[in-house]
Amino acid sequence: MSHPFAERLGLQFVERARGRSRCTLAVGPEHHNPHGVAHGAVLFALADSGMGAALYPTLDPGEICATIEVKINYFKPVVSGTLDCVTELVNRGKTVANLESSLYLDGKLVAKANGNYAIFRPGASVRGEAVEQPRTAGRA
Amino acid sequence: MSHPFAERLGLQFVERARGRSRCTLAVGPEHHNPHGVAHGAVLFALADSGMGAALYPTLDPGEICATIEVKINYFKPVVSGTLDCVTELVNRGKTVANLESSLYLDGKLVAKANGNYAIFRPGASVRGEAVEQPRTAGRA
Amino acid sequence: MSHPFAERLGLQFVERARGRSRCTLAVGPEHHNPHGVAHGAVLFALADSGMGAALYPTLDPGEICATIEVKINYFKPVVSGTLDCVTELVNRGKTVANLESSLYLDGKLVAKANGNYAIFRPGASVRGEAVEQPRTAGRA
Amino acid sequence: MSHPFAERLGLQFVERARGRSRCTLAVGPEHHNPHGVAHGAVLFALADSGMGAALYPTLDPGEICATIEVKINYFKPVVSGTLDCVTELVNRGKTVANLESSLYLDGKLVAKANGNYAIFRPGASVRGEAVEQPRTAGRA
Repeated sequence: MSHPFAERLGLQFVERARGRSRCTLAVGPEHHNPHGVAHGAVLFALADSGMGAALYPTLDPGEICATIEVKINYFKPVVSGTLDCVTELVNRGKTVANLESSLYLDGKLVAKANGNYAIFRPGASVRGEAVEQPRTAGRA
Repeated sequence: MSHPFAERLGLQFVERARGRSRCTLAVGPEHHNPHGVAHGAVLFALADSGMGAALYPTLDPGEICATIEVKINYFKPVVSGTLDCVTELVNRGKTVANLESSLYLDGKLVAKANGNYAIFRPGASVRGEAVEQPRTAGRA
Repeated sequence: MSHPFAERLGLQFVERARGRSRCTLAVGPEHHNPHGVAHGAVLFALADSGMGAALYPTLDPGEICATIEVKINYFKPVVSGTLDCVTELVNRGKTVANLESSLYLDGKLVAKANGNYAIFRPGASVRGEAVEQPRTAGRA
Repeated sequence: MSHPFAERLGLQFVERARGRSRCTLAVGPEHHNPHGVAHGAVLFALADSGMGAALYPTLDPGEICATIEVKINYFKPVVSGTLDCVTELVNRGKTVANLESSLYLDGKLVAKANGNYAIFRPGASVRGEAVEQPRTAGRA
């Protein structure tokens, strides 16, 4: 399945398992803000994508998920190098799941995020941005 | 000042005032996740950029700011159209500021974010991802 | 309906409407931490209670709600006086609602919180701390 | 040092170390909301107190800290039993620290919180609710 935004950013998945994922991104000048450090949204993209990827394998057939909210903490500025984002499922309820992403650069923790996701069946209405929503679901 | 990541995304500022900013982004297929909706990081980019832009004009000469954390809530999936992100300063202390962004599509609220930013002088060390950090600050 | 914890704190409701509530609390020495200011949990109690009260009138018969998560920002220390907490519904989906509380002391904003709540029918399982859960639901 | 609010709640510290703390609370009917489960603010009190206690031993003489913000996730309703709150320092900068609390009941994770704290010297002004502020600081 193509992922236009991830490709545009250069985000790549190393692992996609039940309740766990790992993705990476090589930071370059195209990810910088005016001051020469990676924009916060670049790190956020790894976290949000990583959470969706870790949650997706836990879904039942016909279920999809959507981001309710994510909080991300920034610890260190990132100029260059490869970001490594490790995500784990913290809690899995029937309709809400909580996940956590730790972002490392050269083995140092540079950011940490925690998010809640809604799990539902299309048609059964829910709010939240679709993370793993079939295009055919037509929720637009 | 060039902003490579914002240009890459197509993010544009409409207003940059003391404690207030407005930025927009026309959502296209390049912003989509595999399921045909805008990736959460696209909306996050508007919020984080908008917060930096609203805070920056309140800084004293020599001061810079860095994101401590941002929480973003997603209310509706976004497929196409122009996102309009309005940001306001909620509280301004000497070393920490709180800001809030509301993201609209066709006048409907689709996401809302709240973030805390550290205000400091380069050299005086702080953690957090630099938002308005002169490249010369060399915090990498 | 008795509310043992609210009574213990001295929390009182001034308004409980569809999507809006107001509650107050007179801060005394019994709410203080070791340094003579109100404990953060006292302000949090107003926000979480206020959100439940504003959401409850929007529920259908048979529905209950539970806190998924709340983020609270603290702007100023509170020593004494009456806290006034105004809560409003930001977004109401079928199964998730987002609410916001602003806490004032003498007309000054001292804290602000934003939270997400799950809406469900008992028996239909959900996770999250029950806010408006009949004791008979037996989810313990 | 007396802690009126903690005593009122029945919160007790088991461990207070550099970057780590553990506190407990025996949940009783006095902590309940109208539906017979512990109020969210009770769990929040453990997290916020635990974070202050874990951060405090890392401060230099003359430094104090104040809560910037805390986000707490609720996973399971708590009716009775002893809550065990384990807190760890995630990142320690010079002026901002990030901490995380995991709350357990009978070995099960029932809630998880993440917060940012400002570190400063009284007189040097900061915003945020004082957590470890000498009464003499007179910031009211």
